[in-house]
Amino acid sequence: MANSKYAYVRNFELPDPLLPGTFILFRLDGHSFHRFADKHKFTKPNDVRALELMDHAAKDVVEEYPDIVLAFGESDEFSFLLRKSTTLYNRRQSKIVSTLTSLFTSCYVFHWPKYFPDTPLQYPPSFDGRIVLYPTEKHVRDYFAWRQADTHINNLYNTTFWALVQQGGQTTTEAHAALRGTLSKEKHEILFSRFDINYNDIDARYRKGSVLFREEIPEDPQGGTNPSSGHKSIVIEKRPSKTEEKTESSVTNEAQGEALPTEGATQNQKTKKAKEKRKQQQPSRIAIQHYDIIKDEFWDTRPDILAD
Amino acid sequence: MANSKYAYVRNFELPDPLLPGTFILFRLDGHSFHRFADKHKFTKPNDVRALELMDHAAKDVVEEYPDIVLAFGESDEFSFLLRKSTTLYNRRQSKIVSTLTSLFTSCYVFHWPKYFPDTPLQYPPSFDGRIVLYPTEKHVRDYFAWRQADTHINNLYNTTFWALVQQGGQTTTEAHAALRGTLSKEKHEILFSRFDINYNDIDARYRKGSVLFREEIPEDPQGGTNPSSGHKSIVIEKRPSKTEEKTESSVTNEAQGEALPTEGATQNQKTKKAKEKRKQQQPSRIAIQHYDIIKDEFWDTRPDILAD
Amino acid sequence: MANSKYAYVRNFELPDPLLPGTFILFRLDGHSFHRFADKHKFTKPNDVRALELMDHAAKDVVEEYPDIVLAFGESDEFSFLLRKSTTLYNRRQSKIVSTLTSLFTSCYVFHWPKYFPDTPLQYPPSFDGRIVLYPTEKHVRDYFAWRQADTHINNLYNTTFWALVQQGGQTTTEAHAALRGTLSKEKHEILFSRFDINYNDIDARYRKGSVLFREEIPEDPQGGTNPSSGHKSIVIEKRPSKTEEKTESSVTNEAQGEALPTEGATQNQKTKKAKEKRKQQQPSRIAIQHYDIIKDEFWDTRPDILAD
Amino acid sequence: MANSKYAYVRNFELPDPLLPGTFILFRLDGHSFHRFADKHKFTKPNDVRALELMDHAAKDVVEEYPDIVLAFGESDEFSFLLRKSTTLYNRRQSKIVSTLTSLFTSCYVFHWPKYFPDTPLQYPPSFDGRIVLYPTEKHVRDYFAWRQADTHINNLYNTTFWALVQQGGQTTTEAHAALRGTLSKEKHEILFSRFDINYNDIDARYRKGSVLFREEIPEDPQGGTNPSSGHKSIVIEKRPSKTEEKTESSVTNEAQGEALPTEGATQNQKTKKAKEKRKQQQPSRIAIQHYDIIKDEFWDTRPDILAD
Repeated sequence: MANSKYAYVRNFELPDPLLPGTFILFRLDGHSFHRFADKHKFTKPNDVRALELMDHAAKDVVEEYPDIVLAFGESDEFSFLLRKSTTLYNRRQSKIVSTLTSLFTSCYVFHWPKYFPDTPLQYPPSFDGRIVLYPTEKHVRDYFAWRQADTHINNLYNTTFWALVQQGGQTTTEAHAALRGTLSKEKHEILFSRFDINYNDIDARYRKGSVLFREEIPEDPQGGTNPSSGHKSIVIEKRPSKTEEKTESSVTNEAQGEALPTEGATQNQKTKKAKEKRKQQQPSRIAIQHYDIIKDEFWDTRPDILAD
Repeated sequence: MANSKYAYVRNFELPDPLLPGTFILFRLDGHSFHRFADKHKFTKPNDVRALELMDHAAKDVVEEYPDIVLAFGESDEFSFLLRKSTTLYNRRQSKIVSTLTSLFTSCYVFHWPKYFPDTPLQYPPSFDGRIVLYPTEKHVRDYFAWRQADTHINNLYNTTFWALVQQGGQTTTEAHAALRGTLSKEKHEILFSRFDINYNDIDARYRKGSVLFREEIPEDPQGGTNPSSGHKSIVIEKRPSKTEEKTESSVTNEAQGEALPTEGATQNQKTKKAKEKRKQQQPSRIAIQHYDIIKDEFWDTRPDILAD
Repeated sequence: MANSKYAYVRNFELPDPLLPGTFILFRLDGHSFHRFADKHKFTKPNDVRALELMDHAAKDVVEEYPDIVLAFGESDEFSFLLRKSTTLYNRRQSKIVSTLTSLFTSCYVFHWPKYFPDTPLQYPPSFDGRIVLYPTEKHVRDYFAWRQADTHINNLYNTTFWALVQQGGQTTTEAHAALRGTLSKEKHEILFSRFDINYNDIDARYRKGSVLFREEIPEDPQGGTNPSSGHKSIVIEKRPSKTEEKTESSVTNEAQGEALPTEGATQNQKTKKAKEKRKQQQPSRIAIQHYDIIKDEFWDTRPDILAD
Repeated sequence: MANSKYAYVRNFELPDPLLPGTFILFRLDGHSFHRFADKHKFTKPNDVRALELMDHAAKDVVEEYPDIVLAFGESDEFSFLLRKSTTLYNRRQSKIVSTLTSLFTSCYVFHWPKYFPDTPLQYPPSFDGRIVLYPTEKHVRDYFAWRQADTHINNLYNTTFWALVQQGGQTTTEAHAALRGTLSKEKHEILFSRFDINYNDIDARYRKGSVLFREEIPEDPQGGTNPSSGHKSIVIEKRPSKTEEKTESSVTNEAQGEALPTEGATQNQKTKKAKEKRKQQQPSRIAIQHYDIIKDEFWDTRPDILAD
């Protein structure tokens, strides 16, 4: 057969499994997003449409991959935590990195018009992704604390910087110079004394970033789930019992099921069983919150996130 | 500083440089595209709109990354060859895999409406990508021969299969059974005797896949480049001398320039110089052809592709 | 300079750091030791000289590398656990694997005449080594349990097998056939009823393998350390306070000090300080025991082994 | 079975195959050999006994592994080139690195008394090893040129330095100061004018290092091979036709044969066949020479070294 004499080139595909028993942290970042933000006239210091679009894309990814137990986003980056026992794509590094980056990107472009109805996308944006392994829960908590501390530092800086420029009439050069070497406290003071802004009153979304996680849908005493009953979360319901709904959500679940056979039958069946089991559990939805994830409370009240 | 006590988590990011001096072959595949094709009613056995959309996305990627010297696509997969001396992203594997997969995906979704004006995208499609290193020119040629032989085998099968179903009135099960174990010759015979199809008359696009490569734009005696003068290639011109055009093409070049500073200044400057140099060379455009790339001729007449 | 035009070949040396924060388990195995044992007429089923030689080589390795906190040996294999925070050789995989394998091999050949005074070494034996990373204490405990369970299974089989051959007059083929499919209990029964051997009375060294770990030298009320006072361990004292002794032990510490500068000055100084600190602590010695390391007791009474 | 509940820890052993189709370069270096040389009173600037011992150990390694086609040594380092098609140990990196380092170390300690009959080994020396992959013949040649250029530079420096100290009565500090910044030419001049040493008359072993390679044993017209007839090489014959000789050489071949079954039967059989075939070829021996391997001649007259 014509093919066989060339098929040896497959031997150059080397295995790249990730160490088992470790948390897989996947982070993606916008590629040249300074320029992208300029081209699409993103509001400074924060553009709520762009942030909500990021959240939506992230939510789609979390929904598609049940082994993602937590996600955190700020600016043009998003981090996703896969449970440490995940066998997604047999833990093949390139497969996971490329597929998750691709799906996020696709969702971002796909949902763009919903968030920017009057701003057509001028060119296709892209993201890069990477995987980092963390051996213990402490590492994972410190990772997310690192990102949320970063959110805080950047946002305080940017908020003060753009106040100086937009309301204070400074040039960007002057504003940078004014802020060089200032402490947090001093930036708070500038905001408050000069612009009457109490930093802590600013939208938690900007100060804390976005935290996505699954939460069980509380039983509705009237006999149904009632995600909206006084619950503040922006949630996307997912009712696994209603099959064959032509929604994007049910659709993407099937898609993943189809992809799995390439991974080897045994793995596939195990994964399917695990998925089955999860489906029979309490229905859950994905919450998008702007909680503090540096302090203990978030984690203490959601032990499932790091558990296995 | 709040950040510093957590910043140690960065130490878990391990380097992943690809071996220098080897050809980098990047291949991406559609994720669950059987289902995607069904949902969007792709024509069987080949949907020219879907194939042209793939080509367009691939072309954008080739245009954005001057170190891609060849690309080959069939069905829902595309392969890209980076020159062996490339220092793109310091040859970091995850960075290259994720960025190229992301850009391709983004272009695919972005250009969808041009190719499917009457078929709205129902959900965000995704792709997975991988890198394989090949040490020598022979390996590279054999890799592309492997893919094109695969194109041939698949297309002959699919063409015959769908002829039996669509024109022969067989069920898909019957058609599969009819083709089990048949040789190429026998499939040709079925097509010809039963459906009056001469396989070799079928569009080369389907039989050979798509081959993308740079070619110099011949000097126009009237003082300009003239890409359309009797040249059969579907080409996208790229005039590097006209700066500040608000085209996607010039735009994406800047984008790449912006991304580079994270790679370290020295590398950046070197890369910039190399890019500068290429820009001063003969203007080139990206040709999309359906040539035979198994035989020598394609390679013999384009020695630049494998040269360094 | 003549050298510079070739020095680019160094760029092909790729980094290979091991994930931080994980236990590094290094295991080595004799290469073709069936043949080696035959050539040197090792006693069957166990040759105490060969096992003590393995222990001695392992002890030398543990002594040389303070970050090795536990070692376990059986037959011609030995496992070494490095503390999870170790920065030995900047956690470079090839450097650690090759150096530890080399030192063990060297010690094995070097000490051979002490254990085989009447059997000259006929050819140079070799070992192969590998590193496995384990994220948590549980994995480490299960690893050592796996090896010790293996020791038990192999030794019970071999003991019964060689009893059948040496005392029972069976051929090796007959003995293999007799044991095929037998349970542990049945092997115990064969040993007891036919050869009057109570398996549990056999030397713990054969049944449990060798466990090497550091233990503090208890203060001697008479003003010195007294390692032999009623203590059963076979210990090799190491008195860090007596510098400049021309012993192998002091020597090897210096040797390691010399090697470190290549790792970069900062790392080096940190490592030196850590070493200094350890030296000022309670003097310790390396115990060689044949304890059960599957049950909790060993670990519960020595929390330092897995602590960091 | 007791073992099975722990056996999952094997899943943490990750594959580490080296890219096929590339030259595998394995280099080892003495660990803390400054100190080792001092302790054993090596002659300065070169100790011929130590160099010959290195050569002997390297020769044993080359003999044991037929896929090693070239080796080069200087001072306390040795480089080994494996043919690019080698499937030794399925190209597993740790296995190759550790086994070759171990065998070399073992041979070094084993043969020590032959070269240092009056200087007992005071402690076990060790080596570290690493693998570097090179895609093309040019890289390989440049690698060896790099090492031999290094030999020249180091030896010229050391020869001049020790002449200043040993014959010129300078302290080592004075000698270092005297040589700081000097060019090759100036060192030659110092040697010649002050110490009457013509550098080019110095033993080629010191100036060029040691080159090991296989060469065919010329047919002896009298009916036997005659390696000593006017041939300058220091050679170790290997007569593959005389089986069952109880020599180290035949022995080590068997040893390798035994090790292979762990690699999977198919591989094993292929390797065995390849070995068989090589055995039937012209008998060869390993030459140890001090040739120039920077210039073309060495390579042009021995095309087999880089061929596959």
